[in-house]
Amino acid sequence: MSSHRLRIHFERIVAPADIRIDGDRPWDVRVHDVRMFQRILASGTLGLGEAYMDGWWSCDALDEMVARAQRSDIPSRLMSPATMMRIAQAKVMNLQKGNRAFEVGERHYDIGNDLYERMLDPRMIYSCAYWRSASGTAVDLTAAQEAKLTLVADKLRLEPGMRVLDIGCGWGGAAHFFAERFGCELVGVTVSKEQASLAKERCAHLPVDIRLQDYRELDEPFDRVYSIGMFEHVGVKNYATYMRVVQRCLRDADSLTLLHTIGGNRSRGQTDPWVERYVFPNSMLPAAAQIARAAEGRLIMEDWHNFGADYDLTLLAWKRNIDARWNELSDRYDDRFKRMWDWYLLSSAGSFRARALQLWQVVLSRDGIADGYRADGIR
Amino acid sequence: MSSHRLRIHFERIVAPADIRIDGDRPWDVRVHDVRMFQRILASGTLGLGEAYMDGWWSCDALDEMVARAQRSDIPSRLMSPATMMRIAQAKVMNLQKGNRAFEVGERHYDIGNDLYERMLDPRMIYSCAYWRSASGTAVDLTAAQEAKLTLVADKLRLEPGMRVLDIGCGWGGAAHFFAERFGCELVGVTVSKEQASLAKERCAHLPVDIRLQDYRELDEPFDRVYSIGMFEHVGVKNYATYMRVVQRCLRDADSLTLLHTIGGNRSRGQTDPWVERYVFPNSMLPAAAQIARAAEGRLIMEDWHNFGADYDLTLLAWKRNIDARWNELSDRYDDRFKRMWDWYLLSSAGSFRARALQLWQVVLSRDGIADGYRADGIR
Repeated sequence: MSSHRLRIHFERIVAPADIRIDGDRPWDVRVHDVRMFQRILASGTLGLGEAYMDGWWSCDALDEMVARAQRSDIPSRLMSPATMMRIAQAKVMNLQKGNRAFEVGERHYDIGNDLYERMLDPRMIYSCAYWRSASGTAVDLTAAQEAKLTLVADKLRLEPGMRVLDIGCGWGGAAHFFAERFGCELVGVTVSKEQASLAKERCAHLPVDIRLQDYRELDEPFDRVYSIGMFEHVGVKNYATYMRVVQRCLRDADSLTLLHTIGGNRSRGQTDPWVERYVFPNSMLPAAAQIARAAEGRLIMEDWHNFGADYDLTLLAWKRNIDARWNELSDRYDDRFKRMWDWYLLSSAGSFRARALQLWQVVLSRDGIADGYRADGIR
Repeated sequence: MSSHRLRIHFERIVAPADIRIDGDRPWDVRVHDVRMFQRILASGTLGLGEAYMDGWWSCDALDEMVARAQRSDIPSRLMSPATMMRIAQAKVMNLQKGNRAFEVGERHYDIGNDLYERMLDPRMIYSCAYWRSASGTAVDLTAAQEAKLTLVADKLRLEPGMRVLDIGCGWGGAAHFFAERFGCELVGVTVSKEQASLAKERCAHLPVDIRLQDYRELDEPFDRVYSIGMFEHVGVKNYATYMRVVQRCLRDADSLTLLHTIGGNRSRGQTDPWVERYVFPNSMLPAAAQIARAAEGRLIMEDWHNFGADYDLTLLAWKRNIDARWNELSDRYDDRFKRMWDWYLLSSAGSFRARALQLWQVVLSRDGIADGYRADGIR
């Protein structure tokens, strides 16, 4: 197909979302290199993202463009043959087996703490913040992340002296908070050396034990177990294993666990190929049915909270932070990296805005809380 | 096996739950006819319930006995060959197809309004009440049922003039409440003639349209759709149909639906054989994974609330009401019926107390609420 005919083809695809090619509204797409059409045709959303990284197209409001496209289900119409292969592959392979679990640690989280230090809040919490809590609206990212950690602590009914496990502890921000504010003893595991190293340093003065360890090895008694933004790397073949590990680590009948994860609207068993290649290798967004099925017969689901709209706000805050301090990073990261990162943050924000992605906090107990679990006044 | 050896066999089965045969604590079982052992051996929990109805055994605290047995997973050890057949049958047959949907209407709900009028609150709400709401603890059943209806209204964000569908409207209590208190226009469908007749009478002065109709025929636009205690009769083969019907009846992208249902801890696809025969024919308790799977690609799950422990309190209130006014009913219902009803109410209360059963309210939207759905301050 000629690039002129390809342009018409794509104009038709995006028309239902009210997006125009070379239109003049913030969410319209401006073409700088007509080869982008061929690239998208050949490799779908992977090609779309790569063409953006290469500067072949731009858009003033990437997030809004993506939100519109998602609401009209356009990404599924851009699916390439390679993506369909990848879906088939994900169904038969365990992408998170053994050492592959460490791959995401090396490829994404070890990019450089300098970048995350500038993008995130001072506690370096790399997951969805909570902007509109029961106690009010957060004024900034730091307050919203603190509100999220307080939400987790309240839902888990943390008390001094409790032994608490953090699966996927990141840079130790949550473990630090629960040890310092709630007097708990924490064990945090991560598969990223960079994260483990910084987490140890930051939590040195507190009863926090940071380990470079696969969660599947864990078999110790805890009063509470949680994971925040880690389940996205677990993979559907391991959801049951995850629940089994949590179950065996919960000490008492009324011990609680909290699962904080991004969720997808379908049991797809795969992730977007661009995100897979450039952001989170071997990641997979769970569907609600997959989580519920994995917990079945192992844990009692007490509460399921969806605040996906807050991830939109969180991602925009990260984008503002990166832009404001880009001059401190631009000698280490080139323009292509910046465009990659912008596409990652803004296309994700748009997907949450369109409710194509969800953010779930699921509270589960080992055997069921005797008088029932109450989340009233907490959320 | 001799009845002596059978007694020893069952003593061993119930020992882990600290239940004794002919013991003297409230939750111990007193045997009045030794044939009960053979009956349980032959037909499991069906035989257990029937033996109770026939007065072959008794127990001062039936609910507590069942709670202890459930916590030790004893019912699964009483499963008879017939029950296993029934599970296999439920997996291949659609027990709720066509006219069978009306069977539960005739067999359970048409028993006699006189009984339900004495057992239930004045609004005749035949589903779990809400005892510990955000605004405080209910003093009695009437207040707790009103708190439940207010909870549903708040979660659905009911506003005057909204067109609202009630799937399985019972005696019209909820429809009446939402029309009178919130100024909504209601359509209520039920498969019970007795219920439809009384519901019409009670809602005659309000904008409430009561219909004797199968929910699967519905295809009209509504602002809100809910079902309270009806999904237990839908059956796993029809969960996807249920969600499809709700989806097509929701008018706008931000239209909401609420599903209030008892839930089971496993995707069993069957119900207890005694409950099946004497209480709810063709009923089936959904597992969370089955609900989530059925909603997938059709509706966005916004909030999942579990207050199963409140059903224990509700069932005990119903039992107190029945006992207090039994003299008004005893000429129409014999002692065997009374024991059947006691076993139904108290064994259910015990199962909820043990958290072997759940009560879920799931809020879903058609396309996802734009800024996110908030249940804070409501629950």
